[in-house]
Amino acid sequence: MTHTQQMVQTNPSQALVDEPTLVECIEACFDCAQSCTACADACLGEEDVQMLSRCIRLNLDCADVCEATGHILSRQTAAEVQMLRASLQACAEACRLCGEECENHAEHHEHCRVCAQACRRCEQACNNVLSAIPA
Amino acid sequence: MTHTQQMVQTNPSQALVDEPTLVECIEACFDCAQSCTACADACLGEEDVQMLSRCIRLNLDCADVCEATGHILSRQTAAEVQMLRASLQACAEACRLCGEECENHAEHHEHCRVCAQACRRCEQACNNVLSAIPA
Amino acid sequence: MTHTQQMVQTNPSQALVDEPTLVECIEACFDCAQSCTACADACLGEEDVQMLSRCIRLNLDCADVCEATGHILSRQTAAEVQMLRASLQACAEACRLCGEECENHAEHHEHCRVCAQACRRCEQACNNVLSAIPA
Amino acid sequence: MTHTQQMVQTNPSQALVDEPTLVECIEACFDCAQSCTACADACLGEEDVQMLSRCIRLNLDCADVCEATGHILSRQTAAEVQMLRASLQACAEACRLCGEECENHAEHHEHCRVCAQACRRCEQACNNVLSAIPA
Repeated sequence: MTHTQQMVQTNPSQALVDEPTLVECIEACFDCAQSCTACADACLGEEDVQMLSRCIRLNLDCADVCEATGHILSRQTAAEVQMLRASLQACAEACRLCGEECENHAEHHEHCRVCAQACRRCEQACNNVLSAIPA
Repeated sequence: MTHTQQMVQTNPSQALVDEPTLVECIEACFDCAQSCTACADACLGEEDVQMLSRCIRLNLDCADVCEATGHILSRQTAAEVQMLRASLQACAEACRLCGEECENHAEHHEHCRVCAQACRRCEQACNNVLSAIPA
Repeated sequence: MTHTQQMVQTNPSQALVDEPTLVECIEACFDCAQSCTACADACLGEEDVQMLSRCIRLNLDCADVCEATGHILSRQTAAEVQMLRASLQACAEACRLCGEECENHAEHHEHCRVCAQACRRCEQACNNVLSAIPA
Repeated sequence: MTHTQQMVQTNPSQALVDEPTLVECIEACFDCAQSCTACADACLGEEDVQMLSRCIRLNLDCADVCEATGHILSRQTAAEVQMLRASLQACAEACRLCGEECENHAEHHEHCRVCAQACRRCEQACNNVLSAIPA
């Protein structure tokens, strides 16, 4: 059992969505933040860095939004559907844009291929939580 | 002239919106992140902390979203309207929710009164940028 | 193989320390940031929140420092021993202080027990990287 | 009076250092985080981006550490001298390294010149708080 799972289970407040869907999304947000931070740096070290400037920029944006969303999802006290929804929508959008851009470079750069996977997994996980939260 | 203004002007890429509207919003995001971080802490030190738990929670969420949005707005390279819009919408919503909650405690706690001002200014600044970005 | 491992391996720049030690520390930093963010929230939802104010405060500090350190360790381009050392020392100290405080509440609150584990693992991982970086 | 000043004054817990020294440092941390985030992006948009890779990398590190330190300084509840000291030392070091690197490019890039100012001001402010906190 991961620490994230244990933290969700031991919080005195009930989560707004079922535990596996929530845990998957929290872990995907932190994982994607790490991959995007690392991909921005890997791109920066490449010889064709100028061709990767849009990728670096979206990596940095996506890392920022994933981290904010990972924090918000980690909180269960006085949870607010509107706050959750707004941040999940921003996060799914950031992951979609960054994932698409990384896919454009996946053939030439392995780090972009891996990062695209992390983005797509997180995009999906955000959409799953969005479907699960009460209307 | 603030550092933020100078940084916007010296970026080699043109910003998506006019400079004063952009600068106001970047500064409001960082200012609100600071106020919310400090308000969460001030609430935590109050005797009636239990009554302030929703305020603390929204303070922390709002600080996270303001910081992510402040970063995204600070970047002008390969700017993406969809990324900007999604994060500004999340930020305006976070500031609205946190501002409303802080207003509920403004009579009893000066830090909530000040923080509500920072939230409302940032909410307005986000909405101004949202109106200014091309459709 | 985790995404973090893959990102470290596919970076065009050589890491300053051996891969397993680095990967363990990056993953411990992000994991600890998540646990501390969640523990602050879980404490906030407890009836004895007033007794947990120091724990919440250290949780928030520790999450901030772990996240900054996790980012810095994720970058391999133009790595700077002095930057690494300063942030790892701050992170080991934050994890030690927060881990100790969480241990004080471990008997009464499961989330503090789990969070203490995450802090202690991260403290150790930071010290391992500190021992491994060139003098 | 800035929001930061008001937030420091209205916190129910006494700050560990005198108010003007603390406020100056909190504001310098957030200001430097903004300048470094913007400088990384401005460098990324320059034609000689490859020559600026170390600058971008240090900008990103410095922004991360300044933000963590700005948060920690914004909290006055159960303040811990050891936590403060460790994060201020990391922040002064990050600002020194990034400031030096930005100064190397100040003649060719205005954003590096401005960012170096923000870094040097923050380095000084961190050292001032370090001198003021009780031994």
